[in-house]
Amino acid sequence: MNKKLKVKSQKSKVEKIQKKRAVVLLSGGIDSATTLYLAKKQGYEAFCLIFDYGQRHKKEIRRAEKIARKAKSHWRLLKFELPGKGSSLIDRGRPIPEHRQLTAGIPSTYVPARNIIFLSFASSYAESIKARAIFIGANEVDFSGYPDCRHGFLKAFERTLRVGMKIGVEGKKISILAPLIKKSKAQIVKLALKLDVPIEDTWSCYRGRKSPCHVCDSCRLRRRGFAQAKIEDPAL
Amino acid sequence: MNKKLKVKSQKSKVEKIQKKRAVVLLSGGIDSATTLYLAKKQGYEAFCLIFDYGQRHKKEIRRAEKIARKAKSHWRLLKFELPGKGSSLIDRGRPIPEHRQLTAGIPSTYVPARNIIFLSFASSYAESIKARAIFIGANEVDFSGYPDCRHGFLKAFERTLRVGMKIGVEGKKISILAPLIKKSKAQIVKLALKLDVPIEDTWSCYRGRKSPCHVCDSCRLRRRGFAQAKIEDPAL
Repeated sequence: MNKKLKVKSQKSKVEKIQKKRAVVLLSGGIDSATTLYLAKKQGYEAFCLIFDYGQRHKKEIRRAEKIARKAKSHWRLLKFELPGKGSSLIDRGRPIPEHRQLTAGIPSTYVPARNIIFLSFASSYAESIKARAIFIGANEVDFSGYPDCRHGFLKAFERTLRVGMKIGVEGKKISILAPLIKKSKAQIVKLALKLDVPIEDTWSCYRGRKSPCHVCDSCRLRRRGFAQAKIEDPAL
Repeated sequence: MNKKLKVKSQKSKVEKIQKKRAVVLLSGGIDSATTLYLAKKQGYEAFCLIFDYGQRHKKEIRRAEKIARKAKSHWRLLKFELPGKGSSLIDRGRPIPEHRQLTAGIPSTYVPARNIIFLSFASSYAESIKARAIFIGANEVDFSGYPDCRHGFLKAFERTLRVGMKIGVEGKKISILAPLIKKSKAQIVKLALKLDVPIEDTWSCYRGRKSPCHVCDSCRLRRRGFAQAKIEDPAL
């Protein structure tokens, strides 16, 4: 290969890498924000999906939009109503658990099939924009025990896409990437700092008050993570 | 067991059977209507989900509602926008294929991950109303080649629910039931007649004109089915 051709080939390789697309599920929390910044660092052009599914407050949605804008990513807000009731994250008549023992099973904040629905929309989007990767901030270490945050589920869903989508029939694959799945919250906090994630803009609290409640699962997992990482939470 | 107790036990068994719940995906076409009537015949209390996902016309939605009402079933209409474009079933700028060779691969009417999204909502609904079955009118014999209408996909999705939902963690199961999956359109037509499905209310055409176009895949599959069953289509 002569020099000119080599340079050209390297250039198109770089362009190709720069152009690889990924759909990123963005919730406004620290995990999905860190996942977005990781995807960008890995050279992906990120297409964020933010969901308004009737959650108790819209604060996390506004934060997700802000984070997507700061990350200079494409983003779309999808709105829908869930057919079932019963989760305290949706139903304002049910209390959000406070000071719960974090390992005591699946809490009332569990929303049936939430990540299954999110990933289904992400798969549809990925295929139509020719993205081969979906990033999700799922974590099965410091988490609330939701079954749709675990590695086994994500792998099963990925297999389902292989047999249920056109891209699978064509012998190609959409990968579900969950780079935080085995990390502790403290490790995620350190990674977020390293990647310059705008942590001050993230919102983890299940409640949408002026400041975090400090007593829901999500607040407590976050606080413990920052404490273990020996870092002060810039959002407080 | 004395007689009185035995009668009581039989009665509560009958009540239990009568009360078993199923979520049914309803589109307004003949397949899903027949599936609904089959579910009812099998003793299920049917909770239909109808979707407004931005399809070209609303006619099939109105028909689905009418069918659900006639079947005296619960029903809900869920509305959302799909994030991707490109399918001729959604994008009015793309033509619906006419007189297509039905075995010639996946047509432009394919909507990425449509049944994955529908089944995700159905799973969420099923878990929250304690239904253990989801009925879908998918068919892989006289169909347009959509990958998310095939048995292998439905089984993979069912496995995903087992690992991704609370009910699975509890050792129980939500079954995806596709009773028409291996039937020809002619067999479905005969079954619909036998079950007193209001065939005259069903709508199969991809277009939403006053009468069916007769040239899209869906019209042609339907016409062939009625012809093979030697039955006149009461909707014409």
